[in-house]
Amino acid sequence: MTARAHSGRRPGDSGTREAIARAARRQFAELGYDRTSMRQVALEAQVDPTLVSHFHGSKRQLFLSVIGLPFQPAEVLPGLLAGDPNEAGARLARFALGVFESDEGRSRAVGLIRAATSEPEAARVVRDLLTREVLAPLAEGIGSDDADYRAALLMSQIVGLIMARYIVEVEPLASREHQAVADAIAPTLQRYLTGDLSAPLP
Amino acid sequence: MTARAHSGRRPGDSGTREAIARAARRQFAELGYDRTSMRQVALEAQVDPTLVSHFHGSKRQLFLSVIGLPFQPAEVLPGLLAGDPNEAGARLARFALGVFESDEGRSRAVGLIRAATSEPEAARVVRDLLTREVLAPLAEGIGSDDADYRAALLMSQIVGLIMARYIVEVEPLASREHQAVADAIAPTLQRYLTGDLSAPLP
Repeated sequence: MTARAHSGRRPGDSGTREAIARAARRQFAELGYDRTSMRQVALEAQVDPTLVSHFHGSKRQLFLSVIGLPFQPAEVLPGLLAGDPNEAGARLARFALGVFESDEGRSRAVGLIRAATSEPEAARVVRDLLTREVLAPLAEGIGSDDADYRAALLMSQIVGLIMARYIVEVEPLASREHQAVADAIAPTLQRYLTGDLSAPLP
Repeated sequence: MTARAHSGRRPGDSGTREAIARAARRQFAELGYDRTSMRQVALEAQVDPTLVSHFHGSKRQLFLSVIGLPFQPAEVLPGLLAGDPNEAGARLARFALGVFESDEGRSRAVGLIRAATSEPEAARVVRDLLTREVLAPLAEGIGSDDADYRAALLMSQIVGLIMARYIVEVEPLASREHQAVADAIAPTLQRYLTGDLSAPLP
């Protein structure tokens, strides 16, 4: 901190913050959580290393603030789950595919999944984030008895779709038009939301 | 190493092979594909580095032979897909959950997913492996018009389940009894196998 008293800080906090976030985002996405260090992020952002912790706290907090979710679930989900409950699966499917079709949304979603699968510490961070920000609001929106379980099943299909379509890029799923993919998974999401989960056959 | 410099090879190929495989499996699972090197595998297995390529060829081939799939799809799938087509989803779901409940099956599945999400080279290897060994036999077994797409959708749900239940460990999905989880995803698999994929609502 003392070093930057002289010069360290760039003109304006927001420029510094943004430079740190950009460097961290690149390193987390390309090197993974484990190999990204606060020091290397500072170096790439050309700021004093103490500024990284000044703005972002721990590496865990840095990860959360620069990777984060591609949307604000608590703001978005209630609207998606309101309205005709028999069409909520279709609304969720179209919304999810819409998010992933944007570069920003897709890269954030892929970044989260990459981090969660590669390092146990990042998996914990992502689990806490998903539980608090996605699964709890989802379960609240669903409102049924087994809502947490339903929310987790919904997540399993959506995460699996990101894996297959955007990470492993399995064909023809990877190149299929996104409205068609939304239609294909909508009934799955609908059943996890409102259907019978104990009957193995329809 | 020098002690063995004259002979390099341990008594018996199978012991050497097994030592290499064990070391490689540990390193791929813990360090990821990118950070695992033939040299470090040889060091851990206490064999001459040339033996690793002698037995396994390239790093890509080493990865495939030690990680690989937790079952032989071409042998297993035809049987799962034969019989009453309306119960194939349930058979697939129970088989998949059964595989993942074994330590060996789960760790191989998780190893494949970890590798595929962390390094583009490993993603290519896994995509080729899945396409050839799983998706093509699955599509052949399904036999319908859009069979490749159906096979990819099936994979998306199964991979997503592995992520949510065994890697991110989202509750209560992670601790739910495996027969119950099989029942919950069976109708999803059934619809991807035989259902209408273009109708967003049931």
